[in-house]
Amino acid sequence: MITILGAGVIGLSTALVLAENGHKVKIVAADLPDVAGSDGAPASYASAWAGAHFRPFPAKNEGEKRLATYTFATQKFMNKLAATRPESSVQIIEGVDWLDEPDQFYQKYKGQGIPEFHVYERNKTAQHDDVDPFATVPECVNWIATYKAWSVNAPMYIQWLYRELLFVYGVEFERRRVSSLKELFVPGVSVVVNCSGNGLQYDGSHDPHCFPIRGQTLLVRAPSAHKYNNSTITHQGKDGNWTFIIPRGLNGGWILGGTKQVKESDPKPREADTQAVIARGKLIFPELLSSNGEFDVKRENVGLRPAREGGSRVETERVSEGAVVHGYGCGGSGYEMSYGMALDIARLVEGVLRRDSKL
Amino acid sequence: MITILGAGVIGLSTALVLAENGHKVKIVAADLPDVAGSDGAPASYASAWAGAHFRPFPAKNEGEKRLATYTFATQKFMNKLAATRPESSVQIIEGVDWLDEPDQFYQKYKGQGIPEFHVYERNKTAQHDDVDPFATVPECVNWIATYKAWSVNAPMYIQWLYRELLFVYGVEFERRRVSSLKELFVPGVSVVVNCSGNGLQYDGSHDPHCFPIRGQTLLVRAPSAHKYNNSTITHQGKDGNWTFIIPRGLNGGWILGGTKQVKESDPKPREADTQAVIARGKLIFPELLSSNGEFDVKRENVGLRPAREGGSRVETERVSEGAVVHGYGCGGSGYEMSYGMALDIARLVEGVLRRDSKL
Repeated sequence: MITILGAGVIGLSTALVLAENGHKVKIVAADLPDVAGSDGAPASYASAWAGAHFRPFPAKNEGEKRLATYTFATQKFMNKLAATRPESSVQIIEGVDWLDEPDQFYQKYKGQGIPEFHVYERNKTAQHDDVDPFATVPECVNWIATYKAWSVNAPMYIQWLYRELLFVYGVEFERRRVSSLKELFVPGVSVVVNCSGNGLQYDGSHDPHCFPIRGQTLLVRAPSAHKYNNSTITHQGKDGNWTFIIPRGLNGGWILGGTKQVKESDPKPREADTQAVIARGKLIFPELLSSNGEFDVKRENVGLRPAREGGSRVETERVSEGAVVHGYGCGGSGYEMSYGMALDIARLVEGVLRRDSKL
Repeated sequence: MITILGAGVIGLSTALVLAENGHKVKIVAADLPDVAGSDGAPASYASAWAGAHFRPFPAKNEGEKRLATYTFATQKFMNKLAATRPESSVQIIEGVDWLDEPDQFYQKYKGQGIPEFHVYERNKTAQHDDVDPFATVPECVNWIATYKAWSVNAPMYIQWLYRELLFVYGVEFERRRVSSLKELFVPGVSVVVNCSGNGLQYDGSHDPHCFPIRGQTLLVRAPSAHKYNNSTITHQGKDGNWTFIIPRGLNGGWILGGTKQVKESDPKPREADTQAVIARGKLIFPELLSSNGEFDVKRENVGLRPAREGGSRVETERVSEGAVVHGYGCGGSGYEMSYGMALDIARLVEGVLRRDSKL
């Protein structure tokens, strides 16, 4: 029996890979996906609140190259789900990045490995196209990338994984708050997978490199005729703010965001954040406004993205009862990296089991 | 603005019909579908706990004939959803009734209007068939009906309706407990639709003909190879007990039931009920047992079916502020009658609006 701590998108995806490999798996978590989409999901259960889509990024170092490979593996998986399991909510759409002032990495970025990747620079590439791609974007935007992307309806996606694990693979689930990884080493369990997001440790302490990035977003209803039905757009403003719109599949509305409040953990929506997102949204995505000139806001979401200095930790740690395989700290890229990271975590688990079976 | 009280399958279906007809609709309810499928749904929110499928029944009187027409209209709607909206969880399967001792109504029943309806009587029709339909049923069964049926994954179905109403039609939802229908007549509202299930009245009293039928069921995982993947079977025992298995679409497991505890309202699962359902289930559906000879129970469900002496009430009542259109008291047949009853409720609402517009 392999025990996984955490039922966020990383824990669930890891359970899927391990169950597909024939292992007996149990997930222990304070929150299970059945609460996602309701007020019952706390902000600490970030996967229940996410706006989730693929976005490319120029890898600035070796660590980011590893994360990029996770996103590519995930994209492959999402493409398969979109084609075969529409109820998973995965949809293939157009991804769009709008940057006011791209840094040197973006300026050189060729989007290697990303399907249908195109870059447009104002006053440079535009004149070569039949249609000026800058004709319909905010004036402040000077750099555009478009690509093939996916998006999911986050609560529906993790609930789909949950049903798949529960009923197809017979994975066990236990809703329980644990205070150390050590507690999970009971007779019959020699491998614990740590998908706790915020880095709970063997001894009950927390990884000191972990911190939350508070994200507040709005779930909005869009007027029926608008240009965001089949695309997700992320605007990176020169003031450092990111404003994005992500369609949620299966008639789930649109996520309009958002905040990136580093080391903040207030679980309640804040009126000032809502107003700031609305103000930026009105400038960047005016087509989403209702006829009264306002956004039709259905819900305010707060999720605490489980970030980590240096990026996510995927690593084996030997302990007296066996081994912990860590897989946590994805920050705001949990869905994007989920399946690729799960494959990597499972690779480490298989390594532990192979080594232990030889002992 | 038309206000509907109640977000069970009747309230939601009625909202859908009215919204499709172009009306501005608001639903006010103590519980909204986002809690369905989690521990957050109370037993009083029966639609969140249901096992839901089509079952034919011989209409014994005029009242039951009206209910039968509701089920036929609903079947037509469900067929459409199964073909066009797989994410609604609706699936078309084989319906099977097993009766130990059919009463006179069943013995004469020809299943008028029901697609692919066949009856088999032990020692009577069996010998005319190539395959003896009694060869694989429990020995106690003497009468079998098979037909084309539908089933839904109840929490997923009402959440699908919820998203459709919220994001496609712009229906408003308010989570609020109301203590009388009168309270819902605010300026701008002259028609209130009463889908309260248990018959809340204008003055805050309750319809004295209403009562709950407590239903306790088990959500089980079935072994992968068994004969219930594409069928729903209801056994009517000679002891008066009904034992049934209903597949929940989109990998939602199976509902094994159940109890019909008239005028009981205990919201918690009872161990004695669980054991009784398990004992009957082992005799009737042994193929669902795991290799250890036990059911793999994932959840115990309790729903209080909102029944009414004489059947559901669909009726217009004039009040000082306008009109109440009642649509409640479906008992255990809410899903079965849902769309047909919604059409009938909407017909009454249109009648009120037509009459009032002429005044």
